[in-house]
Amino acid sequence: MSTVQPTWVEGAAGSGFDVDHLPYGVFTRDDDHPRVGVRIGDLVLDAGAAEPPVALAPYLDAPTLDPLMAAGRATWDAARAWLTEVLTDASAAERVTPHLHPVDEVSLRLPFTVADYVDFYASLDHASNVGRIFRPEAEPLLPNWRHLPVAYHGRAGTVVVSSTDVVRPYGQLKGPADVAPSYAPTARLDIEAEVGFVVGVPTRLGDPVPTSAFADHVFGVVLLNDWSARDVQAWEYVPLGPFLGKSFATSVSAWVTPLAALAPVRVPLPAQEPEPLPYLRVDEPAGYDLALEVVVNGETVTHPPYRTHYWGPAQMLAHLTVNGASLRTGDLYASGTVSGPAREERGSFLELSWGGREPWTAGGEQRTFLEDGDEVVLRATAGTLTLGEVRGRVSPPPRPRSVQKAGES
Amino acid sequence: MSTVQPTWVEGAAGSGFDVDHLPYGVFTRDDDHPRVGVRIGDLVLDAGAAEPPVALAPYLDAPTLDPLMAAGRATWDAARAWLTEVLTDASAAERVTPHLHPVDEVSLRLPFTVADYVDFYASLDHASNVGRIFRPEAEPLLPNWRHLPVAYHGRAGTVVVSSTDVVRPYGQLKGPADVAPSYAPTARLDIEAEVGFVVGVPTRLGDPVPTSAFADHVFGVVLLNDWSARDVQAWEYVPLGPFLGKSFATSVSAWVTPLAALAPVRVPLPAQEPEPLPYLRVDEPAGYDLALEVVVNGETVTHPPYRTHYWGPAQMLAHLTVNGASLRTGDLYASGTVSGPAREERGSFLELSWGGREPWTAGGEQRTFLEDGDEVVLRATAGTLTLGEVRGRVSPPPRPRSVQKAGES
Repeated sequence: MSTVQPTWVEGAAGSGFDVDHLPYGVFTRDDDHPRVGVRIGDLVLDAGAAEPPVALAPYLDAPTLDPLMAAGRATWDAARAWLTEVLTDASAAERVTPHLHPVDEVSLRLPFTVADYVDFYASLDHASNVGRIFRPEAEPLLPNWRHLPVAYHGRAGTVVVSSTDVVRPYGQLKGPADVAPSYAPTARLDIEAEVGFVVGVPTRLGDPVPTSAFADHVFGVVLLNDWSARDVQAWEYVPLGPFLGKSFATSVSAWVTPLAALAPVRVPLPAQEPEPLPYLRVDEPAGYDLALEVVVNGETVTHPPYRTHYWGPAQMLAHLTVNGASLRTGDLYASGTVSGPAREERGSFLELSWGGREPWTAGGEQRTFLEDGDEVVLRATAGTLTLGEVRGRVSPPPRPRSVQKAGES
Repeated sequence: MSTVQPTWVEGAAGSGFDVDHLPYGVFTRDDDHPRVGVRIGDLVLDAGAAEPPVALAPYLDAPTLDPLMAAGRATWDAARAWLTEVLTDASAAERVTPHLHPVDEVSLRLPFTVADYVDFYASLDHASNVGRIFRPEAEPLLPNWRHLPVAYHGRAGTVVVSSTDVVRPYGQLKGPADVAPSYAPTARLDIEAEVGFVVGVPTRLGDPVPTSAFADHVFGVVLLNDWSARDVQAWEYVPLGPFLGKSFATSVSAWVTPLAALAPVRVPLPAQEPEPLPYLRVDEPAGYDLALEVVVNGETVTHPPYRTHYWGPAQMLAHLTVNGASLRTGDLYASGTVSGPAREERGSFLELSWGGREPWTAGGEQRTFLEDGDEVVLRATAGTLTLGEVRGRVSPPPRPRSVQKAGES
């Protein structure tokens, strides 16, 4: 798909991190200072050290991606052009090679400062599955679902980078047969396999972002695991939505794939019926063909397809700002669980186990929800690209799994 | 109530901003740099310029309250002790007076960097009123309400300081009789009179904050207006809670009242039945006797009493972190609408007009929800203290109030 020259970096061709990708991250070596890195093959380019042009140095010689993200599309394009040039021009190899470090010898950080985090609910199959599981007698979709991309604000302060352990959270749990809630660790720890969009260019309060301006504001894409405690969520969520059932951790990939790298996988959105209000209309193709994969303890258990996601990211951004809400550099908004129509395409264990009633297997063991020690990895490909993975292991709750009942001391 | 010496600052006694208060803000004069100010009477002390002790200088000679907030209770106490000393020691008057500026000659800024914003729903009268208005046939309170302080995350990036105009937002509206939603400016622009709590000392991910540690983490209190577009909210909020109906603006007072200044107005919480789970239990007194007032176009229209608020701020903080969610300096959490049992104690126009059916009057004009040009001011007293006001005027929507219907181009 790529029309660029091949890179001189060995092992990059066919790796998913070829010169057509060039995702950005932030890394440290030993205990030194965090700085911008660019992934190529199994190596990380220390971008600021590799003598970028003077005009790009303030953005690439930086401790986070924030300055680059805020700089806007012309700078993003210039940085990508320079990176492509130095990684394809064989005469640059001698100069640049000292600034390439094996990815397994660096430590990857959360690459940007998360401003606000918004999670959408934009997969028709996911929303329909959840409706069928929780309200089997009723229409699976609520009346607003096909008119607007439903969303809520999540906790920005607990967004963590891939490879951060996730501690099983405590909370209030109350089953339908219980008289009162208990205080206990969640027994229904789940994931949501999602695609996250990272805002670079901010807006002023009062200025909505039309769908046509999507690529002027969104810097890139991450994979995202919206960890969920389903029993906590079920008890707490009326009438104001998810809170503690989600706020304990949200994991993102360490690598941000630039939006420009995804141009080859743009695809039309699925048909939207009824036609959305004008402010939600898009010039196609407005979708992205990303193939996700959920791996538990080394075994792939489901393959959620982002290609068929109902609401596209430009629509989400237009909706998020239609009331004049401003954007900040580092705003993160996510697709909601990516699920396809088939069982093996469901992006959460709530759906895969159909509300806990149908166990699935991974590594020879049965699961409905996650057990302590389980490791979940989200992966995705986008044509020739491999997106940065999101890895997380479940740690046991910090204290013994005691249960307090309301009224006990 | 105060046991401190009187201040030498003229006009401070009896002003609500006497030396027993000393709220913090951030101000500029002309176009110069933002810096920490302390309100005394109708004056603002330029705290960093007034030669604070070396140990306090990094916190008081700063462009925001963030460093002071993060520094912790010992520093908060030391700063308050120093301020009290210089403002009560008449021999300091000559040295300090040049650093006192009339409050109407400075410009007040948002005083801290808002990290995450959480809004609770913790008034029994408010939650009951909303239940009665929207679900007249059913139990007004949902089953979880008396077991946990219900809350959701709001948009931190659109928290604005008092005196910022609020533009009437557009959104999707759909009345019960409408076949499809319209795109139009909200016709039900409302307020919520709330008390906000500002977190100073952060926590690590995984460390819950017990109710007993409330005063070690919370720096102070603001008044807060959670502007709400009720028609947008009604259509969008199922199943994930409020989003665009709230995210266009949340106004806070420019002055943060230190928690220590509110010690004299601590009161027991109202009786909680059933008894909360152990992690929500408090040592009384855990409430605060704040008397709020909502002023529209110069006329006081309602007097919400915070004294009877069901869930206290230490309980809210313990609940917010019970799943291990970490705190950051600048986290802001709010009480939810403060409403008392009487009509003239309701803290939102949704309640005051009983869903738009019972108009109220201000300045001789009838209102249900807000009109363009209306000015709303929230005020509160706490014993001898006057909290910083929250002022906001409604601006017309940016374009003509056209209405687009779904299906139209």
